[in-house]
Amino acid sequence: METQQRIKDVRRSALTLSLMSDQERNSLIDKIKDALDSNREYLIEENKKDLFSAKEKGISDSVLHRLVFDDSKINSCISSLIAVKKLECPTGKIIAKRELDEGLILEKVTYPLGVIGMVFEARPDAMVQIISLALKSGNGIILKGGSEAFNTNRAIRKVIHEKLKSDDYILLLESHQDVDDMLKMDKDIDLIIPRGSNKFVKYCMDHTNIPVMGHADGICSIYVSDKADLALATPIIVDSKIQYPAACNAVETILVNNNIASSYLPVLKKALEEKGVKIHGDEEVSAIIDCIPSSEDEYDREYLALELNIKIVGSIEEAINHIAAHSSHHTDCIISTDQKEIDTFYSSVDSADVFSNCSTRFADGFRFGLGAEVGISTGKLHARGPVGLEGLTTYKYQLSGSGQIVKDYAAGTKQFTHKELM
Amino acid sequence: METQQRIKDVRRSALTLSLMSDQERNSLIDKIKDALDSNREYLIEENKKDLFSAKEKGISDSVLHRLVFDDSKINSCISSLIAVKKLECPTGKIIAKRELDEGLILEKVTYPLGVIGMVFEARPDAMVQIISLALKSGNGIILKGGSEAFNTNRAIRKVIHEKLKSDDYILLLESHQDVDDMLKMDKDIDLIIPRGSNKFVKYCMDHTNIPVMGHADGICSIYVSDKADLALATPIIVDSKIQYPAACNAVETILVNNNIASSYLPVLKKALEEKGVKIHGDEEVSAIIDCIPSSEDEYDREYLALELNIKIVGSIEEAINHIAAHSSHHTDCIISTDQKEIDTFYSSVDSADVFSNCSTRFADGFRFGLGAEVGISTGKLHARGPVGLEGLTTYKYQLSGSGQIVKDYAAGTKQFTHKELM
Repeated sequence: METQQRIKDVRRSALTLSLMSDQERNSLIDKIKDALDSNREYLIEENKKDLFSAKEKGISDSVLHRLVFDDSKINSCISSLIAVKKLECPTGKIIAKRELDEGLILEKVTYPLGVIGMVFEARPDAMVQIISLALKSGNGIILKGGSEAFNTNRAIRKVIHEKLKSDDYILLLESHQDVDDMLKMDKDIDLIIPRGSNKFVKYCMDHTNIPVMGHADGICSIYVSDKADLALATPIIVDSKIQYPAACNAVETILVNNNIASSYLPVLKKALEEKGVKIHGDEEVSAIIDCIPSSEDEYDREYLALELNIKIVGSIEEAINHIAAHSSHHTDCIISTDQKEIDTFYSSVDSADVFSNCSTRFADGFRFGLGAEVGISTGKLHARGPVGLEGLTTYKYQLSGSGQIVKDYAAGTKQFTHKELM
Repeated sequence: METQQRIKDVRRSALTLSLMSDQERNSLIDKIKDALDSNREYLIEENKKDLFSAKEKGISDSVLHRLVFDDSKINSCISSLIAVKKLECPTGKIIAKRELDEGLILEKVTYPLGVIGMVFEARPDAMVQIISLALKSGNGIILKGGSEAFNTNRAIRKVIHEKLKSDDYILLLESHQDVDDMLKMDKDIDLIIPRGSNKFVKYCMDHTNIPVMGHADGICSIYVSDKADLALATPIIVDSKIQYPAACNAVETILVNNNIASSYLPVLKKALEEKGVKIHGDEEVSAIIDCIPSSEDEYDREYLALELNIKIVGSIEEAINHIAAHSSHHTDCIISTDQKEIDTFYSSVDSADVFSNCSTRFADGFRFGLGAEVGISTGKLHARGPVGLEGLTTYKYQLSGSGQIVKDYAAGTKQFTHKELM
């Protein structure tokens, strides 16, 4: 019950936040910046407790790396807060304006969604970024971070609370039971953003009537056409795999056109193996290069490690069909010099990000120029791909009249003008 | 199993449709127009069967009125098809374009959602309009209409089938079991639009992982400020109630400021009663005018008839709080001459349509200038308010490079330019 009451408090406070000017919201972000900057020692001490427990539990290096909250992470949080502050205010924007008739003006205006429930991994810097995006867009935010970051998250929450004074619009949940309570509150929460495994995203969808913006697995492919510039293909594939193998936008499957397979696979193998990447391939592939024998279900696997699948395809259509069957609709790329092929790939591949001749690792809110991201949506509704401030807004239709009634238009005594005003 | 296979066929055919030009899609709409026009007799005969059964079952006049598919309804279907054809193509539009770095161009381009599952009332003309909007936006469409229109819907389907030849992108379901099968196919359907009762919308949400665009009840309010031009208020309230009482955008509750209640309520009562509208009110209201004694839960009731609630409020804030507690977030209106009050109402009322000084009945895709609508969304995600073609699209991020890799930007040897190109 207590959690439910606190969530209702967020809903109420979110209205105040939604009515604030961009300047007022920016001053909240400034206070968060000060709170972090002036409490570095305390935050780092609390983070050490989490790091100690994590090491005791034998948690993997990649998780530990994300869990660290040291001076350099605090600095980058502060830079990120400054960057978010500078972004254009996403609410109160008139995105369409139309005269329906003389003196009857329709405006479509952006507004905050209301209250967002966010479940994220054990990454304290992500918590700061999410809070800043929520406040900038005028939304109340309910956070549940990975339990490995328990002490750090609580400390961040504490120093922010002390600085913001009245700040019911930021709520930190700490238990799984809290998350289950949250999922039930469809009257008070407008959007759930679960970052984590497909399984967890599905769990949320199965247990709530609140819309869920799925940030799920990234099973990304690169198709190397027989019209590819192979001098570009190899560094792009290497970067897409090794630049950050645990990221959702790292590549998992390389589809190579049959016409170039026998000449190109040995080149690709050499480049990948130099970087320690293991190759899985079927019989066709292993007839050309040595590789780990693969099975069909490996195409549905997100390795998150220095491993990938290679598969030979007869045509771009076969590549597109493979992607349709196995992609998680995150990011897929074609390497080709033929614009017609690229256009076919763009229109036929049903993924949030469709790329040509560049690394899949560019699929990211900051790199896309959105300033920052709350996640990468693999759903098609509302927001797709990297989601920044715009994905945290909705709109209202504001219709300002001067006594107009529908009867006159139904009877034909008045006609709509439907004149676009912008 | 058979329904599932047919839905998979829609998914496959929808890809073909998505790749068609606007011209090709328009020629499909033309064929539908011809199919209706050249089969009038057959369609009207089949509709008579439905009308006969409906009358035998003693179905209400308002349902019968919607069920009719006569020459005049066919004419208005044809006009509507011509209007949809003329609308701007909603897909393939570049809605953002940004240079990330030299030779690395990001475009945000609109695309069809894919496959839409639509459940709608017994209104054959709605079926035609929905098909036209789906085809125009390049989406496959699965339809389940109200069972009272069984013969008419089947006949419409048949004549369209005959004319379009290969047209797996339109599927008509006929049983409740089919709907349950459809709700399970989250890999093949991108969006469910249930038009109907709140209960049915909730049923869909509870039984599917597919995003649901709720077209639910309309509990709409009008607040009459003490700064209202009362000469405008009365005709607006009358029109909002009586112009089409069964519509979701008809008004259910009138909130009247305390300062004008004793003078205005008798005037309003007279105007409403002249039109046969029954008034429900609490003790405060009945101290001023005769009315049906009302209880708190009547504020959550959609009358869909010539009945409404009147309630006295002390301030605009009290009106806003009442709306927050009871509105279905569809359409709410303020009557006031004070722009500051209107702005407060616009920012604080969390509904899809917030109006001032005009009838709530304007909340409609055609009247808004969207051409037509698939429904009115009372959710806040993706599409809100009247939903036309735009709500049936999503977007992809298309990133066209010339060999760029992320390593260079991470190492700082290259910098992003993030230059807006439109």
